[in-house]
Amino acid sequence: MKPYFITFILLLTLSVSLCVAQTTPATILEDFKPSTLNQPGKEYPMVNSQGYARFKVKAPDAQSVTVGLGGRGGTKLTKGADTLWVGTTASPLDEGFHYYHLTVDGGVFNDPGTLNFYGSTRWESGIEIPAHDQDFYALKDVPHGNVQQILFPSPSTNTSRRAFVYTPPGYGKDKKKRYPVLYLQHGWGEDETAWSNQGHANLIMDNLIAEGKIKPFIIVMTYGMTNEIKFGGLRNFDIKPFQTVLVDELIPYVDANFNTIADQPHRAMAGLSMGGMETKTITLNKPEVFSHYALLSGGTYAPADIKDKSKVKLIFISCGSKERPDGVKNAAAALKEAGLNAVSYVSEGTAHEFLTWRRSLYQLAPLLFKD
Amino acid sequence: MKPYFITFILLLTLSVSLCVAQTTPATILEDFKPSTLNQPGKEYPMVNSQGYARFKVKAPDAQSVTVGLGGRGGTKLTKGADTLWVGTTASPLDEGFHYYHLTVDGGVFNDPGTLNFYGSTRWESGIEIPAHDQDFYALKDVPHGNVQQILFPSPSTNTSRRAFVYTPPGYGKDKKKRYPVLYLQHGWGEDETAWSNQGHANLIMDNLIAEGKIKPFIIVMTYGMTNEIKFGGLRNFDIKPFQTVLVDELIPYVDANFNTIADQPHRAMAGLSMGGMETKTITLNKPEVFSHYALLSGGTYAPADIKDKSKVKLIFISCGSKERPDGVKNAAAALKEAGLNAVSYVSEGTAHEFLTWRRSLYQLAPLLFKD
Repeated sequence: MKPYFITFILLLTLSVSLCVAQTTPATILEDFKPSTLNQPGKEYPMVNSQGYARFKVKAPDAQSVTVGLGGRGGTKLTKGADTLWVGTTASPLDEGFHYYHLTVDGGVFNDPGTLNFYGSTRWESGIEIPAHDQDFYALKDVPHGNVQQILFPSPSTNTSRRAFVYTPPGYGKDKKKRYPVLYLQHGWGEDETAWSNQGHANLIMDNLIAEGKIKPFIIVMTYGMTNEIKFGGLRNFDIKPFQTVLVDELIPYVDANFNTIADQPHRAMAGLSMGGMETKTITLNKPEVFSHYALLSGGTYAPADIKDKSKVKLIFISCGSKERPDGVKNAAAALKEAGLNAVSYVSEGTAHEFLTWRRSLYQLAPLLFKD
Repeated sequence: MKPYFITFILLLTLSVSLCVAQTTPATILEDFKPSTLNQPGKEYPMVNSQGYARFKVKAPDAQSVTVGLGGRGGTKLTKGADTLWVGTTASPLDEGFHYYHLTVDGGVFNDPGTLNFYGSTRWESGIEIPAHDQDFYALKDVPHGNVQQILFPSPSTNTSRRAFVYTPPGYGKDKKKRYPVLYLQHGWGEDETAWSNQGHANLIMDNLIAEGKIKPFIIVMTYGMTNEIKFGGLRNFDIKPFQTVLVDELIPYVDANFNTIADQPHRAMAGLSMGGMETKTITLNKPEVFSHYALLSGGTYAPADIKDKSKVKLIFISCGSKERPDGVKNAAAALKEAGLNAVSYVSEGTAHEFLTWRRSLYQLAPLLFKD
């Protein structure tokens, strides 16, 4: 499996270096607005219509304040006459969500202006560059499903573990109505909050359901770094602890406590980045458990990986156009040629970041559980 | 209503000045352990068995790093030989949860070691001094209820608003089983996440239910600062916008979408601090909606406030022993003498902080919905 891990690291490196857009407009338009991810009442950071981000931070006695965002050493802020540190990115950022942090006199802190998001194994600052297609994950006046925090018993890890369960609008009103389930995994350094907080998975589902584009299903999101791997430790990643939690503990709990269709044809697994790696390994280890597989910027399947084609209803493979779109397209073509129902999707203009994965979920959902 | 607001501000001031315990042991025991609220894998801040907190922060080029916690100007950290800033509180802290933040070269940042909690209208760092009675809110191997994020339509504020709904273990399995509901409000500067994150309301309920000490009920928690009041603005607080959201929008939504007993005898309202102020005003405005009232460090009712005693099943009033316990006890005694079912509770050794409110919920829950 080693080549796969190397691919994963390469993808990550590539995407970090590309996550700042290449074109630099002549002038920066002064139409900056607060980022939608700011804490209530906070003006900064701001974003303009071209995708530039501007930061303003209070630290009057500091020597140096830098914003770590993207792969170019970040944005060095300068102290203004008002003693506030201010600065604008050197070029526009890609549309969508970006993690970042401040370095203040050599210490790493979050921007007090923004909400925090769990990534890189820490709660980080987040900023949102409005995407031209942001409507599909917008909060709209439609019926909303719920996101439930559950605590499920996990004998293998000797604790109660947390998961979030998206239930579609109207769930539970008719006890006889039962739903398929997608198990959806976050990436390295993230946790079970990522798909709701950064990914807006619940709003994507609410909107798709309101438009009649999908048959409602349940989504379950839990923590996938069960064996506490650290960065660099992916090469020694052992899937067993997480596979046990997911397959032997979480799935039975969900099937016992939610109105699920508790069989293989109505169970999907998907994951982004490292979560794709987990999805690939677990779906291949447990073909009797899942029928729909999706890797979002998380590698590919080869036809030879699939032992029993009759058990696989869908393979979905995606990434951003700034990652390795050809790898994704070629893998899907090869799977198709081998007789599998394979679909590839490339998110235009995005890298190894959450807009790629929001869009991927939006493309994936209508393909799931079609019969 | 003005005297009430002044009382509220006084309580707040009093409690801030008292939240550092008065006794200073001769020696600080070197048995420090990471605070239970640290981010995964983070060693600092630490807490020892006497309640001292020790902080360690990386900011090698900073001039000054101070921890803002309690009312004595905070703890000034000093830079060690390893260039890390370190310091220990001058005296032990009260048991329970405390908000804090760092001031680094004049800028306010969160400690990168800890999880963040919404308080003071911003996401703040949090630290937990283990309480001698922490067992009642511990995560145990018992059946767990869920905490559901719901998005409910709010025509009056022209958006979908968020609330969290605690449903007890086994909720929904038997459609015919219906539950009473407690509407539970946070304090000033906090939001609808506070009672789960800082308060552990869900674990308190799970444990009480597992021990057979209460009949299960639902808890609903939403944002109470609907009119975006700022500090100092409490004097001009208008209850109407929030009352409309709560009574005309949220309650009908909850009754339509959850298995509730949708009548006045099975509906309670409680709130801490500013949430107590809201509870008092709304329960008195809407005696036909709620039957059980609880003010947690949030003022008192006078017998004259209650127009129709037959509509009130319980009045619960509580605070910490470092607030104004006599006010709470006297108010309950007067209500009792007037023929009301009033109960007071004083949390020993705590101030205007969350351990007072965790304990208050633990005391309140068994008194609710007794018939």
